[in-house]
Amino acid sequence: MDETMQMMSMISESAQGPMAGMDMSAMQKCIEACSACEQACTMCAGSMSMEGMGGSAMCMSCAEMCNTMMRMMLRPMPMNEKDMSAMMAMLQATAMMCRACADDCMGMGDSSAAAKMCAQVCMNCADACDAMMASMKPMMAS
Amino acid sequence: MDETMQMMSMISESAQGPMAGMDMSAMQKCIEACSACEQACTMCAGSMSMEGMGGSAMCMSCAEMCNTMMRMMLRPMPMNEKDMSAMMAMLQATAMMCRACADDCMGMGDSSAAAKMCAQVCMNCADACDAMMASMKPMMAS
Amino acid sequence: MDETMQMMSMISESAQGPMAGMDMSAMQKCIEACSACEQACTMCAGSMSMEGMGGSAMCMSCAEMCNTMMRMMLRPMPMNEKDMSAMMAMLQATAMMCRACADDCMGMGDSSAAAKMCAQVCMNCADACDAMMASMKPMMAS
Amino acid sequence: MDETMQMMSMISESAQGPMAGMDMSAMQKCIEACSACEQACTMCAGSMSMEGMGGSAMCMSCAEMCNTMMRMMLRPMPMNEKDMSAMMAMLQATAMMCRACADDCMGMGDSSAAAKMCAQVCMNCADACDAMMASMKPMMAS
Repeated sequence: MDETMQMMSMISESAQGPMAGMDMSAMQKCIEACSACEQACTMCAGSMSMEGMGGSAMCMSCAEMCNTMMRMMLRPMPMNEKDMSAMMAMLQATAMMCRACADDCMGMGDSSAAAKMCAQVCMNCADACDAMMASMKPMMAS
Repeated sequence: MDETMQMMSMISESAQGPMAGMDMSAMQKCIEACSACEQACTMCAGSMSMEGMGGSAMCMSCAEMCNTMMRMMLRPMPMNEKDMSAMMAMLQATAMMCRACADDCMGMGDSSAAAKMCAQVCMNCADACDAMMASMKPMMAS
Repeated sequence: MDETMQMMSMISESAQGPMAGMDMSAMQKCIEACSACEQACTMCAGSMSMEGMGGSAMCMSCAEMCNTMMRMMLRPMPMNEKDMSAMMAMLQATAMMCRACADDCMGMGDSSAAAKMCAQVCMNCADACDAMMASMKPMMAS
Repeated sequence: MDETMQMMSMISESAQGPMAGMDMSAMQKCIEACSACEQACTMCAGSMSMEGMGGSAMCMSCAEMCNTMMRMMLRPMPMNEKDMSAMMAMLQATAMMCRACADDCMGMGDSSAAAKMCAQVCMNCADACDAMMASMKPMMAS
């Protein structure tokens, strides 16, 4: 999306401290992956509940974690040691929830097209969180 | 809750423009009702999905509207004509969704204790939104 | 985005009652506009607060309303008279808040690139909500 | 709040697998602490932005993490190994963010009553997350 690219260049320009000069491509991909995952999980949870299939609690929580993660990346933060550690922990938690949710939805993929797509988008989001963590590691000094 | 009362007195002290001197009791009750409704709807949607009962899409949307409404009231806003109108419209929409959700959950109240409680808490929240709108009307001058 | 189109066709196929056979293009555009508006408002609020410019309460509330609106559209709902009326009221409230927020951010557009983009994306979202309401009207029978 | 206690007993009764028979008091306290923290952070971020003090990005993200954490606890989940690990990781991330936010707001506590209260409520929430993690550990068997 055009807006996301524009926003990334603004965040990049205003980045301070350890974030200054950071390569923004990992963050941009992670924001887009979280947004897609929130949408797919919301639809999957809604359509499972409509079909009386149950089991959508994981998708609801996954949608909310992805939204929270996305918004955190969209806000310029001071990026001192404490809030960078909190962001790393949140990336870790999001990746774990995405993988748990993907596992669950994969099992329902034969009977539900929404669950099949949800599983794929969740895996993609988990990978994007991993890549974002990898890109932050060099900034978190010893 | 003690914190809510403390927060209300802070909001009251910092209120500006048409909000200055406003009676905060309607807002406090509405904040508490929205918070309880978000929690009950979240639990109701989750437990219905767990039991394979379906039908929880309305509860999920109701939970999110109540959360959005609650946060809007917790933020001091400029309170000019435009944003007060937007807040009135959001109160209206929230009250309507709470009543639609209450109707739905009432019908499932015999088989689910969570749905029964959800219906009651939704009705209560709709009434609190109505009272909040009534308290704002005098400030929205001609 | 590919996922959004895939999701729209799934929603379309599972649509029931008055929604069956509905043209989904207005809804797809509204979902995308809400998603972009949530992101722009979140970034705008965050960067204004970072620069000590204040005034971001409206952007925070606008971001949350757009997210709530987007999720509501992503969930297949029973679409009886009551919940369609609640959805119309929420579209109305979102459009109003987007216009109030656009007004506010337009005024800061000279000093902040984030606010300038935010104002444009808010106007676009308000228009998409209007178009969605127009597409729903024929289904809301007398 | 009465509703929270009622909801806890419902969750407790419907608990399955490793959660069955779990002592719910740690979860109830954590739900209440997350709810209070979301409210205080939302108000603190809003009032700082109103006073042009900046620095509220951390409070906004903390509010959203607490809301996401609260909703996760309100939903009965399958509670297999994978989703319990994801919940533990989310509790860990929330506690870290609450402590980072408390640090930040403590420094502004002299000039802002909202920030002073926010710092206290954040510390309380971090402790409640720690206690919840401790209560879950015995269930996460080797």
